[in-house]
Amino acid sequence: MHAKTVTVKLDKHCYDIIIGPDLITQAASQIKHSLHQKDFHQMRVALITDANIASLHLDTLEAELTKNKIHTVPIVVEAGEQSKSFSTLQTVIDKILATRLERGDCVIAFGGGVIGDLGGFAASIIRRGMNFIQMPTTLLAQIDSSVGGKTGINSQYGKNLIGTFYQPRCVISDTCLLDTLPLREFRAGYAEMVKYGLINQPDFFEWLEKNGQKVFSNGSIRTEAIIRSCQFKADIVARDEHETGERALLNLGHTFGHMLETATIYDSNRLIHGEAVAIGMILAHQLSAQLNLINSTLTHRIETHFKAVGLPTQLKDIPGTLPDAETLMTLIAQDKKVSQNNLTFILTRGLGQSFIAKNISSNTILTFLEQKLAEIR
Amino acid sequence: MHAKTVTVKLDKHCYDIIIGPDLITQAASQIKHSLHQKDFHQMRVALITDANIASLHLDTLEAELTKNKIHTVPIVVEAGEQSKSFSTLQTVIDKILATRLERGDCVIAFGGGVIGDLGGFAASIIRRGMNFIQMPTTLLAQIDSSVGGKTGINSQYGKNLIGTFYQPRCVISDTCLLDTLPLREFRAGYAEMVKYGLINQPDFFEWLEKNGQKVFSNGSIRTEAIIRSCQFKADIVARDEHETGERALLNLGHTFGHMLETATIYDSNRLIHGEAVAIGMILAHQLSAQLNLINSTLTHRIETHFKAVGLPTQLKDIPGTLPDAETLMTLIAQDKKVSQNNLTFILTRGLGQSFIAKNISSNTILTFLEQKLAEIR
Repeated sequence: MHAKTVTVKLDKHCYDIIIGPDLITQAASQIKHSLHQKDFHQMRVALITDANIASLHLDTLEAELTKNKIHTVPIVVEAGEQSKSFSTLQTVIDKILATRLERGDCVIAFGGGVIGDLGGFAASIIRRGMNFIQMPTTLLAQIDSSVGGKTGINSQYGKNLIGTFYQPRCVISDTCLLDTLPLREFRAGYAEMVKYGLINQPDFFEWLEKNGQKVFSNGSIRTEAIIRSCQFKADIVARDEHETGERALLNLGHTFGHMLETATIYDSNRLIHGEAVAIGMILAHQLSAQLNLINSTLTHRIETHFKAVGLPTQLKDIPGTLPDAETLMTLIAQDKKVSQNNLTFILTRGLGQSFIAKNISSNTILTFLEQKLAEIR
Repeated sequence: MHAKTVTVKLDKHCYDIIIGPDLITQAASQIKHSLHQKDFHQMRVALITDANIASLHLDTLEAELTKNKIHTVPIVVEAGEQSKSFSTLQTVIDKILATRLERGDCVIAFGGGVIGDLGGFAASIIRRGMNFIQMPTTLLAQIDSSVGGKTGINSQYGKNLIGTFYQPRCVISDTCLLDTLPLREFRAGYAEMVKYGLINQPDFFEWLEKNGQKVFSNGSIRTEAIIRSCQFKADIVARDEHETGERALLNLGHTFGHMLETATIYDSNRLIHGEAVAIGMILAHQLSAQLNLINSTLTHRIETHFKAVGLPTQLKDIPGTLPDAETLMTLIAQDKKVSQNNLTFILTRGLGQSFIAKNISSNTILTFLEQKLAEIR
């Protein structure tokens, strides 16, 4: 099967997302093409990756680049959300500056969402912006975090509170890398795929209901699902690069999701991002039902599909105890989707009919959370 | 005297630089205008400043804003270049996030170049970009660093190696603040003013030769010099926001200047930025003379003017000992104006005839530096 290309069309520049099998073993020519480099003489790239990906795939990628005379500087960070920190950012930046990489050299983020966010942020602020390429290795990163140019790290006050908008020169998504992805991680990425259906593509949700199990196998259905997802996200980003409008729809399930991730202190044993978003989307639908926007049968339908693929759907699926409703509210209020104390949520009026709901009162949310917590106690 | 406005016209947005006396006591309405806020109800600003400015002027600014119902969050950092560090950046960001300022709130950098660079960088990466306003308090900041959107901090590997391009909503330059500026700091800013003449405005250099002493007094000549300088820089930035071309001319004297600042470990007792740039510009002219681009009488003419206003002009004016030429070369090579090991310098073919000289060999510079160091030993 040949690689397919989805183009992200932005005001100032376009870039390609290349999707297909075995791209890692052909990466050099793609990098050359994207950076408009005539030859690789003296070209240097920093390969930012995590310990898991390094043990599985770094040798292969380094061999491909070295064979093609690209000098590589591997920078391996600890796997997991805790690497989206100020201290890891500083370490990565210091290593890149120590090797004297220049603006025209390149930073490659070779990993999942954490590596893409961290590597992209570093690339965006070193020398006020170096060349940057995404090579996402997880389903979540391939369909979501590598597309659209959001970069960042976490703060003690919340997730992704420090970062930039910074677009890569290209995204190289080797679907074969997904074969080594743990099932739980694959499921978490799948939740974001379902999100695209729930936002405004009811057909895609129905297609996933039919084909969901096949997306979990390494065939053409998986690749098709990735291409459709990238195309959807690329279109939204093209229309609203800096999230002044409809891009906020991508936050469906994310305000509740971030709240849950913070409440579980980013402990991946308890919850990973896509799982938090799955539960968050169910909560957003339940809230929509409570506000009489939808019938609760829609929520049940989505729950059924999530359960069929093994995703969590409710607060009681999270191991350990959660803080009380007022503490959860504090976490929401610090989230970046807050504007002048009127809460903004992505709610829905039906399957694939999500919308940006402003001026949701804190009391509405507090009461809703109290009720949800009461159900599990 | 009324305030004058210089507009910076960029592709995506324009913003105004307001220049005049006593603007600090009328700041609230200007802030309101620039942020398109109908009222100040609930509006909050973080006021980033340093200990020196805080003791002189913070009360006045806070009183003006509070009176107009803008909630202020003062963040006072240590005065001096050492505050352009990762640790101070993190402290500033944490304080802003702790007070829950949102994207639509505003960060005001109230200070000199250090505060502008640090505050602008923080504003650009908190929540992927908050509103930002510059209120420069030094001559250097009013005519140079507050204009054009460069932000950043220093690294152990060199100055300004970590940062962003991020434009303010407006710049409010209260010329009365210059009355409390130490003479040495005023001179340092004046060096950058002379630079604008040397880049491509021989008329302005000649005007400064005639009026330089008056620029040091608090009259209309000073204001005129500031307005002309801002207009010059705004024009160059408008034509080349991200320094892909002629904006690099603004680095006249800066490659040598940064080298000297790093060599003196940013010790302001020995050297401050504008002083380093003054010596750097003389070195750039001497190098141009050595490459037979100009006659050395031009260098002497500039030295004479610098000496007349009390600026240093040569390596021996720097207190303490300097490292050897090879160490200085290492500092230059890490500087960001390096591309693939061919050094780029701003040289000149005559008064106000500077140009970007690429492919200057390391050997040429090494020999030149050895010679300069030999002269003072």
